[in-house]
Amino acid sequence: MFIGVDLGGTNIVVGLVNTEGELMESLSLPTGRERGFEAVTQDIIKLARQLMTSDVAKTDPVQGVGIGIPGIADPETGVVISCVNLFWENVPLRSVLEAGLSLPVFIDNDATLAGLAEYELGVMKGVKSGVFLTLGTGVGGGVIMDHQVISGKHGIGSEVGHMVVGDSDVRCNCGRKGCLETFASSTAIIAYAKKHLSDHPESILHEKIEGNLDKIDGRLIFDAAKAGDDFAMQAVRRFAHYLAIGIINIVAVIDPEMFVLGGGIAGAGEFLLEIVKEEMEKEKYFRSVPVGKLCLAKLKNDAGVLGGAFLAKSRLKEQ
Amino acid sequence: MFIGVDLGGTNIVVGLVNTEGELMESLSLPTGRERGFEAVTQDIIKLARQLMTSDVAKTDPVQGVGIGIPGIADPETGVVISCVNLFWENVPLRSVLEAGLSLPVFIDNDATLAGLAEYELGVMKGVKSGVFLTLGTGVGGGVIMDHQVISGKHGIGSEVGHMVVGDSDVRCNCGRKGCLETFASSTAIIAYAKKHLSDHPESILHEKIEGNLDKIDGRLIFDAAKAGDDFAMQAVRRFAHYLAIGIINIVAVIDPEMFVLGGGIAGAGEFLLEIVKEEMEKEKYFRSVPVGKLCLAKLKNDAGVLGGAFLAKSRLKEQ
Repeated sequence: MFIGVDLGGTNIVVGLVNTEGELMESLSLPTGRERGFEAVTQDIIKLARQLMTSDVAKTDPVQGVGIGIPGIADPETGVVISCVNLFWENVPLRSVLEAGLSLPVFIDNDATLAGLAEYELGVMKGVKSGVFLTLGTGVGGGVIMDHQVISGKHGIGSEVGHMVVGDSDVRCNCGRKGCLETFASSTAIIAYAKKHLSDHPESILHEKIEGNLDKIDGRLIFDAAKAGDDFAMQAVRRFAHYLAIGIINIVAVIDPEMFVLGGGIAGAGEFLLEIVKEEMEKEKYFRSVPVGKLCLAKLKNDAGVLGGAFLAKSRLKEQ
Repeated sequence: MFIGVDLGGTNIVVGLVNTEGELMESLSLPTGRERGFEAVTQDIIKLARQLMTSDVAKTDPVQGVGIGIPGIADPETGVVISCVNLFWENVPLRSVLEAGLSLPVFIDNDATLAGLAEYELGVMKGVKSGVFLTLGTGVGGGVIMDHQVISGKHGIGSEVGHMVVGDSDVRCNCGRKGCLETFASSTAIIAYAKKHLSDHPESILHEKIEGNLDKIDGRLIFDAAKAGDDFAMQAVRRFAHYLAIGIINIVAVIDPEMFVLGGGIAGAGEFLLEIVKEEMEKEKYFRSVPVGKLCLAKLKNDAGVLGGAFLAKSRLKEQ
């Protein structure tokens, strides 16, 4: 049995997962991030302890804990380097949890672990190498090869949102310009639509937002594009164009078997998928050679907890 | 014992390499690429057969053959998809060599295999994951993780020269714009210097080329930059800037332990290395987190043959 923890800005979810990847039981609490590192970790320990002593864990004891964080951790020390959402910087998450639980603890990025869950149980099941991209307010990623997440030597791999894919005027949260995240996130497509909508009086978006630019969101833009609105389609096409460059950049490094789109924007479904596929065809550097298949994520809310459990499983197996 | 083959546009080099990676014997012939696929492969078979029957191979027989090609091959079929230099397209290299040698044959890109040699015997020895970049007329690459080259599902991984790193007016050989190769190759820096030299009458390059723009080459530009020429330094800085973006893009995917620069331009040595390191510092997306160490390649001419032998060794071990 393994424990997976999904630590978000809003909720802490802790789940008990068996070796087959079935979620047996789960508990959750509001994160209450304003309470700080100590209080949040004590809550994680409390929930995990409760699951460790539950009936199902008696016949098959918990072997390890995997936790997904909205940030990055040093793979060697288990120190969380940065979790902007939680106001954490350089906090010793692994050592505190290991002391409180007397179990080995493994930490990785939440998007990366959602990718691992898709790899083990979702759309990437049976695939050798795959890359998961979460398209939300930012762009997160999970590179998985041979059942291992690739977070790299310093814990900053699988951060595909920070690949530079073109020139841009928009500055990324990281301080640079041109990051994939500044083109292919909901933040980016909304900013683009807000900036250029006034040049397109014919767009149906004007009617939808009733003159209030702040009403523009990702769904509205994608829905308008589906309904045939030229300006919205232009915004979606630009989004897909840069996303395709990012995907082909990943091909140029590891040429994986599959790419998977998740996160809020992936809710646009097959419509988005087809446009990104078209753009990928244009961006291929060897015209005649196929690249990895593009798919939509399959798992929903439990992906974080399941990914945490699979992280613990794969790391313990490696040791 | 393994056989490594370095198949270039000019020469075919075939070497006998022992399990420790020592080159025991080698033979070579001019490629004579105008003779076509059949004649070239028959020469490879002839040289390999000669080494297989040599005295050193008697006590420790050859187990397999690894060949580096200036192009890409389908990892499943062993068909060479494209070798522009040799005028090859869709030729069944593996099956022809396997039939002629009665040994398992493994094919990969020449730059990728030079990277594998650096990983096993050169500057990356002892490193878990590393990326080799050859800076020549183009930009080639070798991504190596856990002793395996990462050429991917379709044989087009490790092609880091085709990552898009910015906007560009220059079209890459692949048909796209913005590829790393169009910024950080000798071709690119020469084209940049030729285009802008007339705007810089103060540059010492004018004197060096005696009015003939065709005399500009990579070495001349780097030497002028070292000597303090502002315009040449501007060209070198631009080269290093985009190379650093490419390197950090690789970090965002796999965050390897080391990056290694090889190829003609790497002859600029520590001078180039220091400038690229400065640019990498500027491009880091997590300021406080270190990225992989940047080093110069160590192996010289034999890297291709040695890499071929290590490819055969690692693939046979995997089977």
